[in-house]
Amino acid sequence: MKDAHRVLAFASANRPRFIEELRAFIRFPSVSAQPNHVGDLKRCATWLAGHLSEIGLQRVHVIPTKGHPLVYGEWLRGPGRPTVLIYGHYDVQPADPLGAWRTPPFEPTVRGDNIYGRGAADDKGQLFAHVKAIECFLRTAGRPPVNVRCLFEGEEESGSTNFDSFLRRYRRALAADVALMSDMPILGPDRPAITYSMRGALSLELEVRGQRNDLHSGNFGGAVRNPLQALCEILGSLHGDDGRIRVPGFYDRVRECNPRERAYMRHCGPSDSEVLQNGGAEFGWGERGFSLYERITIRPSLTLNGIVGGYQGEGGKAVIPARATGKLNFRLVRDQDPHEIEALFREHIARVTPRGVRSQVRGISYAKPARVPRDHPALQAAAVAYRLGFGAEPVFLRVGGSLPVVNSFQEILGIPTVLMGFALPDDRLHGPNEKFHLPNFFNGIATSISFLREMGRISFQRTGESTGACKRPEAVAR
Amino acid sequence: MKDAHRVLAFASANRPRFIEELRAFIRFPSVSAQPNHVGDLKRCATWLAGHLSEIGLQRVHVIPTKGHPLVYGEWLRGPGRPTVLIYGHYDVQPADPLGAWRTPPFEPTVRGDNIYGRGAADDKGQLFAHVKAIECFLRTAGRPPVNVRCLFEGEEESGSTNFDSFLRRYRRALAADVALMSDMPILGPDRPAITYSMRGALSLELEVRGQRNDLHSGNFGGAVRNPLQALCEILGSLHGDDGRIRVPGFYDRVRECNPRERAYMRHCGPSDSEVLQNGGAEFGWGERGFSLYERITIRPSLTLNGIVGGYQGEGGKAVIPARATGKLNFRLVRDQDPHEIEALFREHIARVTPRGVRSQVRGISYAKPARVPRDHPALQAAAVAYRLGFGAEPVFLRVGGSLPVVNSFQEILGIPTVLMGFALPDDRLHGPNEKFHLPNFFNGIATSISFLREMGRISFQRTGESTGACKRPEAVAR
Repeated sequence: MKDAHRVLAFASANRPRFIEELRAFIRFPSVSAQPNHVGDLKRCATWLAGHLSEIGLQRVHVIPTKGHPLVYGEWLRGPGRPTVLIYGHYDVQPADPLGAWRTPPFEPTVRGDNIYGRGAADDKGQLFAHVKAIECFLRTAGRPPVNVRCLFEGEEESGSTNFDSFLRRYRRALAADVALMSDMPILGPDRPAITYSMRGALSLELEVRGQRNDLHSGNFGGAVRNPLQALCEILGSLHGDDGRIRVPGFYDRVRECNPRERAYMRHCGPSDSEVLQNGGAEFGWGERGFSLYERITIRPSLTLNGIVGGYQGEGGKAVIPARATGKLNFRLVRDQDPHEIEALFREHIARVTPRGVRSQVRGISYAKPARVPRDHPALQAAAVAYRLGFGAEPVFLRVGGSLPVVNSFQEILGIPTVLMGFALPDDRLHGPNEKFHLPNFFNGIATSISFLREMGRISFQRTGESTGACKRPEAVAR
Repeated sequence: MKDAHRVLAFASANRPRFIEELRAFIRFPSVSAQPNHVGDLKRCATWLAGHLSEIGLQRVHVIPTKGHPLVYGEWLRGPGRPTVLIYGHYDVQPADPLGAWRTPPFEPTVRGDNIYGRGAADDKGQLFAHVKAIECFLRTAGRPPVNVRCLFEGEEESGSTNFDSFLRRYRRALAADVALMSDMPILGPDRPAITYSMRGALSLELEVRGQRNDLHSGNFGGAVRNPLQALCEILGSLHGDDGRIRVPGFYDRVRECNPRERAYMRHCGPSDSEVLQNGGAEFGWGERGFSLYERITIRPSLTLNGIVGGYQGEGGKAVIPARATGKLNFRLVRDQDPHEIEALFREHIARVTPRGVRSQVRGISYAKPARVPRDHPALQAAAVAYRLGFGAEPVFLRVGGSLPVVNSFQEILGIPTVLMGFALPDDRLHGPNEKFHLPNFFNGIATSISFLREMGRISFQRTGESTGACKRPEAVAR
């Protein structure tokens, strides 16, 4: 207990320095989607790797990929102890619209309890909380209570293009018992949350083509099928009045959620009015018989993300476009398979495409729904850690989004991921004036410290390459 | 007759020079929609005015407007003779995509029987045929057989923004008996056509707005109304399966066309397969019980020209857009009024906008349907002129497009417009490799010469400021 106190005391005593280091980290404009920032990502990765070496991690590398590099560092000197793979990303979203920022996005500024800057919360600040937790152990106890591997990506905001192939190539070298990531908001400063379920995703393009070239809508309007209108008619018929998706077979594999879990969700999850408030919306919409929180988590959805078709400039242009494309995003739940849903969608579109136009469906991205068992000991450790770090009981949360990396860890490394967020719902991730709440940064460090310590008390029995079984320490002892 | 022969002989003898002059005219990149061409329009106007002076027109002016200048010139020394107002435009459409041109758009090139270049047909070549016809009279007979005013605009391709206010301001000074313009295709090299009916037009924007900001379709998909989807549902329901427009009251004022005219249209107008071929389309579509030519001329239409909403870049982006806008273009027939149709549309949209989103309709442009009586003596003169100039009987044609200038001449100056095209259906107006068929240029000059001569035989009785009654010469004589 004395040791534990020293580690936390070190964390408290060094807060001003930690903030300064985080500022230095945020200062790199590591925008992975914009080619002109290639050098900034390299510099940011080099800085981060240098920092990992400095705090005492070993085998620190900047690992080149076909895109932006990964940063790796480890401490594995605890034989027989569990290994935690800490994942995060040092790349950030584009900062535009620049004019909407109160202070420049890459000149991080502390105002009140917050640090402002692009990437402050997503994900530099959250990632850095774990790095600081490891430092606190190394500088006081001389060792963390578990083995750790840090693996930080530079392409998360641009599709993690090269991440899976890296995992596949080095799956043996990356052996771990559990992955840990903090790249999501909790419900509030005193409402920590452990995410245990994510929807799957399927992104598609639907193109409708008609006549060879754009035509004048005066000269031909009323005599030829307009592909853009046909697209609208198809897209406009994909939902019923009951909010359900009208693709035959779509709901066949959707499991009913058990009543106990629904009761828990009602009790602990966001209310309808909180969902609406978070979304800045006045009214809810969707499938009858489900709360808004349920609609975005345990029920699948289909969103039209955009349409490319015809004239999009100022004023009007009398044109019948020759083609039009809709961009669609399904969110899927257990046990829907994105490839199977794509096949059902293709069949449906073939059936409903009217004469006079041709349609084509193109797949863009696929992610299966993911889930971490709530009774997994690592999730229990996270709950204890939140209690100690935030002084509040965490809720177990389903989210509507998808985290393909969770599937990658499960499918390639065979390990579950603990999703322990430190960001707040109003941190404006991806938006102008992104911020990170500094009390959450400090609570996050304390939570990470407690998590690593709790993990050190669990005994994982590795079977071959994957970690299936695991036991709580008491179970081992008794 | 000897005089007539001399005029036509002059035209024939000077063909090479006329082509060179037309090349010089086309060489000006007078793209009115692009601000970087302001100087080119000025230079083109100055050149054109110089040319009108050179051939002997009087009171030639480059008339400044708030936009691009007008060019004016006149010959009014025939008291008691009819006055023809020759209208055309010296501005052109943008030339892009530049890569699709075989020869540069502003380096006019003669290949075979055609001259290639932006504006070759639309409208420099067609306009110039009339200028050359006047020159032929002035250089041989010393005077044209009628009074003429030339009025050439520099903003036709960008909405004729300042034209109507000019007409209103100088309506007395511009007094004429009939307007003449050549800015449309005929049916073929030996199928001249007089356009006598145009549809009206109404362009609108329909915007649908939902939540305050764009949302993540993972985090909120299924729980909030997507404005882009709502827009698609509205737009997708605007047509019935029978091809009719489902706006209550929309057809109330649509007149049935008389059977004799429909028989004429069937006989002389383009067949369904010609319409499809001209449009590069495989199948027809639209209102049952009407041919394709009828659907684009005597029946109204509604075309969705474009949608602005959501993500339009490469690949996918998981977004629920906060707003989406559709651009719509109605084409209207006798006696539909664009403002009345707009009101009906607004009422309909208010009725069908679903809860959870707000909609707004914005008017962009309005043009009433226009019509020139087929038995008007100026149209009979045009028919005689075509017979002499093209050696073929012209057909009387309805077109689906709108020519707001025809309404302006009717409503502001009180005169009908003779629409006598010299372009061909395959001249690629507005497209890359625009061309003008040189035989049509020469036949156009001959036709204009004959038209002016025929007009000289008509006696118009001006009543006040407008010209209502008019008589064929024989009627006056007898």
